[in-house]
Amino acid sequence: MSILIKNGRIIYGENLDIINGDIYIEGNRIAKVGRGLKLSAEYVIDANGKVISPGFINAHTHSPMVLLRGLADDLPLMEWLQEYVWPVEKKLTSKHIYWGALLGILEMIKGGTTTFVDMYFHMEEVAKVVEKTGIRAYLSYGMVDLGDEEKRNVEIKETLKLLEFIKKLDSPRIEFLFGPHAPYTCSPELLKWVREKANETGKMITIHLNETKREVQDIKEKYGMTPVEFLDELGFLGDDIIAAHGVWLSDKEIEILAKRRVTIVHNPASNMKLASGVMPIEKLLKAGVNIALGTDGAASNNSLDMLEEMKLAALVHKVHTLNPTVADAKTIYKMATQNGAKALHLNAGIIKEGALADIAIIDFNKPHLRPITNVVSHLVYSASGNDVETVIIDGEIIMLDGEVLTVDEEEIINKVQKIVDKLH
Amino acid sequence: MSILIKNGRIIYGENLDIINGDIYIEGNRIAKVGRGLKLSAEYVIDANGKVISPGFINAHTHSPMVLLRGLADDLPLMEWLQEYVWPVEKKLTSKHIYWGALLGILEMIKGGTTTFVDMYFHMEEVAKVVEKTGIRAYLSYGMVDLGDEEKRNVEIKETLKLLEFIKKLDSPRIEFLFGPHAPYTCSPELLKWVREKANETGKMITIHLNETKREVQDIKEKYGMTPVEFLDELGFLGDDIIAAHGVWLSDKEIEILAKRRVTIVHNPASNMKLASGVMPIEKLLKAGVNIALGTDGAASNNSLDMLEEMKLAALVHKVHTLNPTVADAKTIYKMATQNGAKALHLNAGIIKEGALADIAIIDFNKPHLRPITNVVSHLVYSASGNDVETVIIDGEIIMLDGEVLTVDEEEIINKVQKIVDKLH
Repeated sequence: MSILIKNGRIIYGENLDIINGDIYIEGNRIAKVGRGLKLSAEYVIDANGKVISPGFINAHTHSPMVLLRGLADDLPLMEWLQEYVWPVEKKLTSKHIYWGALLGILEMIKGGTTTFVDMYFHMEEVAKVVEKTGIRAYLSYGMVDLGDEEKRNVEIKETLKLLEFIKKLDSPRIEFLFGPHAPYTCSPELLKWVREKANETGKMITIHLNETKREVQDIKEKYGMTPVEFLDELGFLGDDIIAAHGVWLSDKEIEILAKRRVTIVHNPASNMKLASGVMPIEKLLKAGVNIALGTDGAASNNSLDMLEEMKLAALVHKVHTLNPTVADAKTIYKMATQNGAKALHLNAGIIKEGALADIAIIDFNKPHLRPITNVVSHLVYSASGNDVETVIIDGEIIMLDGEVLTVDEEEIINKVQKIVDKLH
Repeated sequence: MSILIKNGRIIYGENLDIINGDIYIEGNRIAKVGRGLKLSAEYVIDANGKVISPGFINAHTHSPMVLLRGLADDLPLMEWLQEYVWPVEKKLTSKHIYWGALLGILEMIKGGTTTFVDMYFHMEEVAKVVEKTGIRAYLSYGMVDLGDEEKRNVEIKETLKLLEFIKKLDSPRIEFLFGPHAPYTCSPELLKWVREKANETGKMITIHLNETKREVQDIKEKYGMTPVEFLDELGFLGDDIIAAHGVWLSDKEIEILAKRRVTIVHNPASNMKLASGVMPIEKLLKAGVNIALGTDGAASNNSLDMLEEMKLAALVHKVHTLNPTVADAKTIYKMATQNGAKALHLNAGIIKEGALADIAIIDFNKPHLRPITNVVSHLVYSASGNDVETVIIDGEIIMLDGEVLTVDEEEIINKVQKIVDKLH
């Protein structure tokens, strides 16, 4: 297919320059960007008064957890997990996960997310939904062995099952990655297995890292070193690691992360809602660590809206450091787009010739996005996912004028409501 | 006029109970709330799958400042003010203010705000716009004398002009209030004049209070006491004071605020973006201080979205105190509705028989608001202003199915764009 997007304000290239013009898409790539392109295309989109942005990359979420949205809030972490989240998760069947992923992915597409990194269970169902909806995804089965060998073997089996499933699907938009849950829930044996298997298969790894003060203390007590030191000593770290949270990090840990070229995924809403803490953004940036952005699961957010997440990221660091110049709009915008792509070694998250055609068109003909002055500032500070109008993923129009073309929105909403009404 | 809203999920009464049913509006009041009301009305709204909420009360903003949205961000406060905000404000004529207020009020109505408290200049223009749009407002001229008697007389004259203008307008939806800018910009003489004139006229007072650490230090140096102590000694404080920000407050000051029944307006986005600090919410709540919610002006937010503001309020205190139980959804929801009404001594901000018919209907047939579990949690944590569908103010339908009926949205957007393009 070929698509011509005409007369938009384009957020172009690495430096997010704003240029007025057209974008020509051929197959799954951006072929040309320029003013007044004289090219015929199968589909023409008029983007007058609209902004053309790289699609957002949600670098850490648990998509089916939308099933738990609003289940319980404002509670201490352990009470929330033990009395609400875990009992419901125990009841979730593959059918539930299928519909939950549909709702979560529908929400992400509607908010301009074109790629996400996921960790949960029954992930074959999520892969089916990714295939069906047309989004791009990196999927992992969340492994937890708590040092138990029998459990470890079950987790390895589940992981290999997902690897095989995704291989067979053979979709250009779906990638497998390894998902050891965290250093405090995975044994060194499991982590070593993951590292070896990742080397063998060339697949990436995602993991939770230093989210809470408590888990860092626990690891220190258990291993006599910090989590990042522990992982480094295992030989676990590398530029194929996407580590979520990174809230409680020592200077030495930040140095190691930079040296090993690990990506940290910032999840401000979740870190705020669960009162985990504030990621040391200035130190990480100064050290040169690649920072991507994620929403985490809906149970601890409670939405999967990357535009809202950007605002939270820009605001929380300013007030935390009492410095209004920290986390400026462009820096945050890059986290939500090109830094996520860098983490995934994906030629996306950017509008330029040759990049994958993963694009969000945002309607600026709305009171809260006017006057149009600084486009990136408006997206970070004034927009929300609802403002996204059209989404193109891998060169295909997945949402047009607010309507997702690949699935039946009403059916999904009703089905999920029925499932959840029965579940609780 | 009479309106019947049918089959909605109603957020009812002081405790925000969720009841499924109908609301019957007669004139400008909520006349009946119940299930299956058998009443005929001039207008019937089907609220199936929708949530009926009290309209939001934005208790502190500067509505025309939407003209400055995105003008400059991520800067130190004084650079932002001196090099960007003030030079543009100097150029603003009454015509600019008129169109700016139109855009700001349009944005507020679209986001479910039914009442706002404003402080700026050329406020007669804002009053005209309030009258035209159908929103409810409390309007003040922001007075600054910096101890200069001549300036003080100008400010007093401007204030009395606005008082007279609003009196003549004689609108049931528009109230005047006094707007001495802050203790650090107003002399004791001006503050005393305001107190006396407020007593004489029965009008309320709004003021900025303890927003930055710096201004508190300045007042201490100048007067040998904290700002709240200083105002209390002047006899300035009372239950007719709506004080914005309240970020840097000593325990003694909180005690005085509680004793004098002063309302503090929380402005989390602005306090975060300008890196002012975090309001001591737990101490204020414990002392029994009434806390309302506001967006502040768009230049320091950059939106006027009360639903988004609620999420920020709920999140920032959790991470600041590292306690996830602080600032729970219901507490924050009350700040955005009934606490604002309490501050204004207004029988609104609540759905119950006899209250003013100021209502927002929110469409929950959207992926990010499903499954419907906890309605108030969804509004605080998952919704944005874009989800508001219909707005009723003073018994009149002002927005229906996303379309504001009292003004031409496209005309306003285009006119403001032209103004701002010329201005910079």
